[in-house]
Amino acid sequence: MTPLTETPQVLNVGLPGFADAIGRAGGTVRHIEWSPPASGDLAAGRALARLVNHPAVEAANRSAFAAYLAATPVLEGAGIARDVIPGMDARRILHAGPPIAWARMCGPMQGAIVGAILFEGWADDADDARRLAGSGDIAFTPCHHHGAVGPMAGVISPSMPVWIVREAASGRRCFSNFNEGLGKVLRFGANGPEVIARLRWMAERLRPVLDATFAELGPLELKPLMAQALHMGDEIHNRNAAATSLLLRRLLPAMLRSSAPRDAMTEAAAFIAGNDHFFLNLSMAASKTMLDAARNVPGSSMVTAMARNGVEFGIQMSGTGDGWFTAPAPVVNGLYFPGYAIADAAPDLGDSAITETAGLGGFAMAAAPAIVSFVGGTAADAIASTASMAAITLGRNGAFTLPAMDFSGTPAGIDARKVADTGIAPVINTGIAHREAGVGQIGAGITRAPLACFAQAVTALAATVAED
Amino acid sequence: MTPLTETPQVLNVGLPGFADAIGRAGGTVRHIEWSPPASGDLAAGRALARLVNHPAVEAANRSAFAAYLAATPVLEGAGIARDVIPGMDARRILHAGPPIAWARMCGPMQGAIVGAILFEGWADDADDARRLAGSGDIAFTPCHHHGAVGPMAGVISPSMPVWIVREAASGRRCFSNFNEGLGKVLRFGANGPEVIARLRWMAERLRPVLDATFAELGPLELKPLMAQALHMGDEIHNRNAAATSLLLRRLLPAMLRSSAPRDAMTEAAAFIAGNDHFFLNLSMAASKTMLDAARNVPGSSMVTAMARNGVEFGIQMSGTGDGWFTAPAPVVNGLYFPGYAIADAAPDLGDSAITETAGLGGFAMAAAPAIVSFVGGTAADAIASTASMAAITLGRNGAFTLPAMDFSGTPAGIDARKVADTGIAPVINTGIAHREAGVGQIGAGITRAPLACFAQAVTALAATVAED
Repeated sequence: MTPLTETPQVLNVGLPGFADAIGRAGGTVRHIEWSPPASGDLAAGRALARLVNHPAVEAANRSAFAAYLAATPVLEGAGIARDVIPGMDARRILHAGPPIAWARMCGPMQGAIVGAILFEGWADDADDARRLAGSGDIAFTPCHHHGAVGPMAGVISPSMPVWIVREAASGRRCFSNFNEGLGKVLRFGANGPEVIARLRWMAERLRPVLDATFAELGPLELKPLMAQALHMGDEIHNRNAAATSLLLRRLLPAMLRSSAPRDAMTEAAAFIAGNDHFFLNLSMAASKTMLDAARNVPGSSMVTAMARNGVEFGIQMSGTGDGWFTAPAPVVNGLYFPGYAIADAAPDLGDSAITETAGLGGFAMAAAPAIVSFVGGTAADAIASTASMAAITLGRNGAFTLPAMDFSGTPAGIDARKVADTGIAPVINTGIAHREAGVGQIGAGITRAPLACFAQAVTALAATVAED
Repeated sequence: MTPLTETPQVLNVGLPGFADAIGRAGGTVRHIEWSPPASGDLAAGRALARLVNHPAVEAANRSAFAAYLAATPVLEGAGIARDVIPGMDARRILHAGPPIAWARMCGPMQGAIVGAILFEGWADDADDARRLAGSGDIAFTPCHHHGAVGPMAGVISPSMPVWIVREAASGRRCFSNFNEGLGKVLRFGANGPEVIARLRWMAERLRPVLDATFAELGPLELKPLMAQALHMGDEIHNRNAAATSLLLRRLLPAMLRSSAPRDAMTEAAAFIAGNDHFFLNLSMAASKTMLDAARNVPGSSMVTAMARNGVEFGIQMSGTGDGWFTAPAPVVNGLYFPGYAIADAAPDLGDSAITETAGLGGFAMAAAPAIVSFVGGTAADAIASTASMAAITLGRNGAFTLPAMDFSGTPAGIDARKVADTGIAPVINTGIAHREAGVGQIGAGITRAPLACFAQAVTALAATVAED
């Protein structure tokens, strides 16, 4: 072909400017979108060059993903944090997200910690509690360092009741606190008398009813219930209406057969039935149980946790163990309740992104078109959102199928390489907390994990893997 | 244009043979599918010519459809048939579908009637009961003639417990029996001791618990619960898993607060929680309540009931009151359970097509892709099925929205004119009964209402409407 006499056929890759010029000159050009891997981060780009298609990484990922798929979370019942959570010292408080010191914590997390101190009786009032929190006499560590997860502030103190979820084969346990419902609640930083009274009721009235119920019911497998909820309009992160109903339907007949006294049982049933989000904390504990099974596979780039402390967004990855890769937590550009705007919002907060990490929540959006329609999207957008996550995941979870996508499995097992390489950030459905303690939820929306976390993760992983 | 020298542009309507010939000769032809109205039924075609776009019919339909939309079914609680159903004499048994004499009834309906006679204590054994049924000493009438509906055989005898659903504005009441669950059940014609024992338990143990529950709960609006179930994968005909869970979630806290004794309450909760179809009978009673509001509008071609007795399929239409238009009930070409085939099936049976008449079931298929995937279809087929029903309905029901169709309302208010005119028959999701009494359910599938019913209906309606 002679370029000057024949019409050239042009493919343009990357910057559209070149293509535009050819087009203006009357040429025919096909443009292909492309951007450099890892958004041009040189170290991450070099790491990707080592990691992509690396046989050891591929094998490690197959192994980690298989372990995640095989994990069977079973709800054993409830307990008191100090009795069941490993490393839960007498003066320790767990919180959401990666590690953070008291002074740097966001408003809702500080407010929740003040509430926990009051609940424990370690201080007489909120000022006293703040002084104690800042004194260094209380240890603050991430829930994730103790096998636990908590939504929003994610605060768990020694006397709080927690769910116990066991992985059936390994016996490993994961934990989550109880969901308090909406309104003035600890997880959004509220710490007034009604919040403390509710925590006390959960520990002293609800937990014994659950103990009696599980003594009667025996352990409850969670995956079938979660799978059913995905067929009923939940993505089991921001929408748990079906899962909560199904849970209640399993618990109540056993509760009635149990030794629980009728008055406490009546309160328990009303509380659970009145809270569409009651299942969320179980969805989170089950998600962590599945992902913990995939931890610590050398060389694996599978993400095992995504979590936010309201200041930083952190991820953990199988091949790099318990290390965190963090970036500033984004502020969620979602739908705000009347009277609130993005300026009122705390940055992204909570361990609940463990559900997305497990292929649920935003990754299962196709199951819950109500979530996208809430922020103005359509059913097709919900399906597209789920479909796009297949580009950054290791496979599909056949245990969690999506009716609207002809019962294909949810995309699951986030591959940090693929995120860094494509620049497609994991989608997360989330509630939005007011930046001040105790105001509560002011909106909900869809956000993305920061790409910088994944660039750091692949860079760190490459250092552990020999060149192929 | 000179046809012989210029290339003609051909539109072919109806028989494709003409188009094929032009195509073979090298011509360009566009074919339009068309068939004569009312499948060529001359009387019905003439009736349609009178009725289509007739101002009085249009106005009548607007009025009937508005009444259907405005109806508010409220669950009052339960009662005993003889105490609450109007015209329920001491020796009367109600059955599904249009009127039919004992001798012509299908196996499952005869079996269910034998069971009802044994339950009532009118006979000592099944042979005795059959003799009594054939003697003429018992009146058999359609449920629909008494404001009632029942799935499959639809048998209701005086001592059976029934649901009471009231239309909030008019106070008019509709009724349905209780759902027995699957296996050996009266509605499929089983009448052994365990069937009779379950009926007795429902009357003597379950009903008093429900009485106590509703005394505590007060009346329960059904449309919001049904709407929520449509957002949770149910079409509330063949799939009632979400609706049953939501109902239980509403009933149990009130049940616990009520005066019901704990042992009976425990049995009731276990029974309801163990039966995914428990809500079906309420979905049917609520559907009838909405459709009864649209009855008896002179000139209206809106269908107010579709029902099958296992021999005939019958419809009722607003403008023709309580008259039935019947045709042989089709045998459902569905998915049969292992060991069974279409030769084993009873023809289409039950009042449950009242749900389709109300814009639910097959008309809301887009809500429940699991239903079509059960018979090999896809999520897109489910949406297409719902969309096609819009061609034969008067409008959409904004109270019942479909997530997969961006929350548009279900097509509702079947217009007998449109069915007869287009030949698009209403789609019905249904269970399939064995043709012999007592074998039970042998499959499920999707069927169509016979077009002949609609041809008769429009012919009858035309006789009541003056030429425009």
